[in-house]
Amino acid sequence: MSRQQHRSLVCLAEEMSHTLAVEKMNLLVLPSILLVISTAHAFQYAELAQYIDSHQEEYVEVLRNWVAIESDSSNILKRPDLHRMMEITAQKLRLMGGTVELVDIGVQELPGGQMIALPKVVTAQFGNDSNKHTVCVYGHVDVQPAKLEDGWATDPYNLTDINGNLYGRGASDNKAPVLAWIHAVEAYQALNMELPVNVKFLIEGMEETGSNGLDAMILAQRDTFFSDVDYIIISDCSWLGQRPALTYGTRGNCYFFAEVEGPKQDLHSGVYGGTVIEPMTDLIGILDTLITPSGKILIPGIREAVAPLSDEEWKLYQDIDFDMDNYKNKIGVSQLMYSNKVDLLAHMWRYPTVSIHGIEGAFSDPGTKTVIPAKVTAKFSIRQVPNMDPAVVKKQVSDYLHSVFAKRKSPNKLKVTMVIGAKPWLADTQHPLYEAGKAAAKTVFGMDPDLIREGGTIPIARTFQDVMEKSIIMLPIGGFDDGLHSQNEKISRYNYIEGTKLFIAYLNEVAQIKKTVM
Amino acid sequence: MSRQQHRSLVCLAEEMSHTLAVEKMNLLVLPSILLVISTAHAFQYAELAQYIDSHQEEYVEVLRNWVAIESDSSNILKRPDLHRMMEITAQKLRLMGGTVELVDIGVQELPGGQMIALPKVVTAQFGNDSNKHTVCVYGHVDVQPAKLEDGWATDPYNLTDINGNLYGRGASDNKAPVLAWIHAVEAYQALNMELPVNVKFLIEGMEETGSNGLDAMILAQRDTFFSDVDYIIISDCSWLGQRPALTYGTRGNCYFFAEVEGPKQDLHSGVYGGTVIEPMTDLIGILDTLITPSGKILIPGIREAVAPLSDEEWKLYQDIDFDMDNYKNKIGVSQLMYSNKVDLLAHMWRYPTVSIHGIEGAFSDPGTKTVIPAKVTAKFSIRQVPNMDPAVVKKQVSDYLHSVFAKRKSPNKLKVTMVIGAKPWLADTQHPLYEAGKAAAKTVFGMDPDLIREGGTIPIARTFQDVMEKSIIMLPIGGFDDGLHSQNEKISRYNYIEGTKLFIAYLNEVAQIKKTVM
Repeated sequence: MSRQQHRSLVCLAEEMSHTLAVEKMNLLVLPSILLVISTAHAFQYAELAQYIDSHQEEYVEVLRNWVAIESDSSNILKRPDLHRMMEITAQKLRLMGGTVELVDIGVQELPGGQMIALPKVVTAQFGNDSNKHTVCVYGHVDVQPAKLEDGWATDPYNLTDINGNLYGRGASDNKAPVLAWIHAVEAYQALNMELPVNVKFLIEGMEETGSNGLDAMILAQRDTFFSDVDYIIISDCSWLGQRPALTYGTRGNCYFFAEVEGPKQDLHSGVYGGTVIEPMTDLIGILDTLITPSGKILIPGIREAVAPLSDEEWKLYQDIDFDMDNYKNKIGVSQLMYSNKVDLLAHMWRYPTVSIHGIEGAFSDPGTKTVIPAKVTAKFSIRQVPNMDPAVVKKQVSDYLHSVFAKRKSPNKLKVTMVIGAKPWLADTQHPLYEAGKAAAKTVFGMDPDLIREGGTIPIARTFQDVMEKSIIMLPIGGFDDGLHSQNEKISRYNYIEGTKLFIAYLNEVAQIKKTVM
Repeated sequence: MSRQQHRSLVCLAEEMSHTLAVEKMNLLVLPSILLVISTAHAFQYAELAQYIDSHQEEYVEVLRNWVAIESDSSNILKRPDLHRMMEITAQKLRLMGGTVELVDIGVQELPGGQMIALPKVVTAQFGNDSNKHTVCVYGHVDVQPAKLEDGWATDPYNLTDINGNLYGRGASDNKAPVLAWIHAVEAYQALNMELPVNVKFLIEGMEETGSNGLDAMILAQRDTFFSDVDYIIISDCSWLGQRPALTYGTRGNCYFFAEVEGPKQDLHSGVYGGTVIEPMTDLIGILDTLITPSGKILIPGIREAVAPLSDEEWKLYQDIDFDMDNYKNKIGVSQLMYSNKVDLLAHMWRYPTVSIHGIEGAFSDPGTKTVIPAKVTAKFSIRQVPNMDPAVVKKQVSDYLHSVFAKRKSPNKLKVTMVIGAKPWLADTQHPLYEAGKAAAKTVFGMDPDLIREGGTIPIARTFQDVMEKSIIMLPIGGFDDGLHSQNEKISRYNYIEGTKLFIAYLNEVAQIKKTVM
């Protein structure tokens, strides 16, 4: 049976299942059709899938309620909302009969020395059959900042359905994927089907600002909550195109603050302009030495540390179905940094880059202000790939910027700090977890998934792999154009609902992994 | 009588006047002392000065009420407060019996094409005796933006007295000087003394954002409100040090927006970093070509247009009592752009400079955000001096930035716009208006004022001089360390109260100007 034929049959079966449900006919007529297209799990999958479809509106409503909570972990003024978000997550899991805990992970020290409580981490457990595998689903319910005036077409905290796309901050990153996992478990329960594996949840609220406190919590529970966990599943990433994908690598990230401080307070640029050496001019001067217009990083030592592109990698990238024009159109640019697919994918996934995010302390509002800012702090980050080491990068960047700054002979003071230092992560795509992912994608979408890497960073993957020695898979359901961290973030109903089915199918596939390969 | 002796006598007289008032003794014992130290106006001045002193707390309260109104003209969300500020100003002048009008000056077009009402301009008139001179006092009651989190030690909109300094946004720029003028007129009225000249007021609410709509209003009233105005007085500047000052020149200002636009929306720097040509990198690159670390402007043609420093100027600057160490300490820097007084004053007053104020559209909040901003707009300005021409500068800057940008071969789009183009202004320091200023300073402070220029810009001065052909004086009362446009703006009680007396004395001196020299 060809892929097309398979796909058509799956669609037919699902469609019939819908129709039959609508017409209240006896569902027992279905098995004979479904047996044609799948394994021993076929019937179970179709019934679960049908359950998911028929609860779509309910799932959208729950997502709407979650998006309405401004759980922005970067803004301490929103901390009460973030605490509430964790409570609501815990309560949802409790109502499903899970063994739920809200784990206190201590406090966060603010730049001014103040202390503020970190959002508790939610852990939950469904099933504890020692004959089954135990998976732990990691997700987060905090979000990036978002304001209507940043250029959102809709209120970022009011989930808005436009042509089947659900717009809202955190919709794709990471609230819908977390809910999809919850709904996957709920569907098994609702249909009185036994979960094929034990499912644990680890849901945090500080992912967007570096997962403060999570590493320590994981280490502390190594011999308790995590002791029986076989596999970690992370769904905090996106597909590459229209096809489902399995993610086997992420870039790390070193995030820097470069602060230039001069006068003791902001000055009127008319009154003082020309007499003082302006911190903003100094800062612009050193930022301009980080990267060339053609993307070459100028900090000595950075490029030298990068592992060379192997022939296998080149071949893998070459074979990936990636539409450059589509990518360009989606971003809305006429030209990318590289004009061929392999170079582009390689620089998206396995080469470092420098992004300058912005400057704190300068005038950033609309309109005009004739100010000489006294203290300005640039925020920039360098994505990390094998074999870069954040500790080394920290020194390379600091030494370089100080040497460039020294040449300016400025009386202002430069301070360079690295506030995030997350290593890259790579998995073995031959691992049974990935084979299970391929099979699940085939069941739900009737096609092989892309094997991709992720330019973004999921620091916790390294902790699970290096420290906890667990195998990890990244199983995304977000669309390639979901606009994570941007204005108008969304997830499509299609990805949200079919993604829930993917998780259902995946649990079944993981149950088939032989205990010996664990 | 030496300057010191004179000053001591003035102080003695004032002190006695205080003491006598407190002890409710007959004030008629004063004239014999006061006659020693001044002209025919001595008695009148002392009585007025005493009135001002005894009403100090009331004046501070009025200033407190004015500062409490967040009349930030750059923030359209504060427009209702700004309208209220104009109403309150008009009402205060009405209650004093002035002929007051609130002049509608139309609407402002916002970048998005929206229209918003401009704050009305307040005009008022006290006295219309054609045998007297008529002065028109110009001032403004809008303020620069201010937020506590910018680094204010106190709430910027709650006037706070710390050791005799009154901290609050707009305290010195320009609310206290406007109130000082109003109180000067009020004092004459309260003591039933005839105003020595007719006094008109022109108070606007858009000064901090370029006096939108004011030029047209002035031209429209050239033959009505302004027809009998002999002299314009502007008190929207500051002293240079501890001594009173008369200001005879201001720099102009060309304020630019340089916008670089790339992707159609902000992007996640992990997901897209390395594949797109980032607008922020482009913007930093072109900003870095404006000025060298040592203050040399790199835009071709700018330096060539500047009038050479004359020997007379050099001599004038050399003679000015200016404490470089004090200036450094006040600003809080270890080194200035120039290490000798003449160079420093010249670059403060009569050479152009470039200040980069900030970037709109990039991440500017505290914390971290891994974003590639899609559209970033730098705000920078170039101070204008004779013989620069804003229309020429506009072209020079735009051509230069576009040529620098073209070399980057970026697919992003650059747009350079000049949003303010204000010419510099220079007055003749031998004009009777300045002679009157010298005499008034002598009366109140017992010393000659400094003749200074102002690095900042007061665009309306050019309109009055060139278009209306009126003579102008700038008569500051703000302290040299008032922190205009900065955090912790303040005016001292000393400058506020003695400044009010200066205005009282100045009105008397102007009355002495012979009609023929008008």
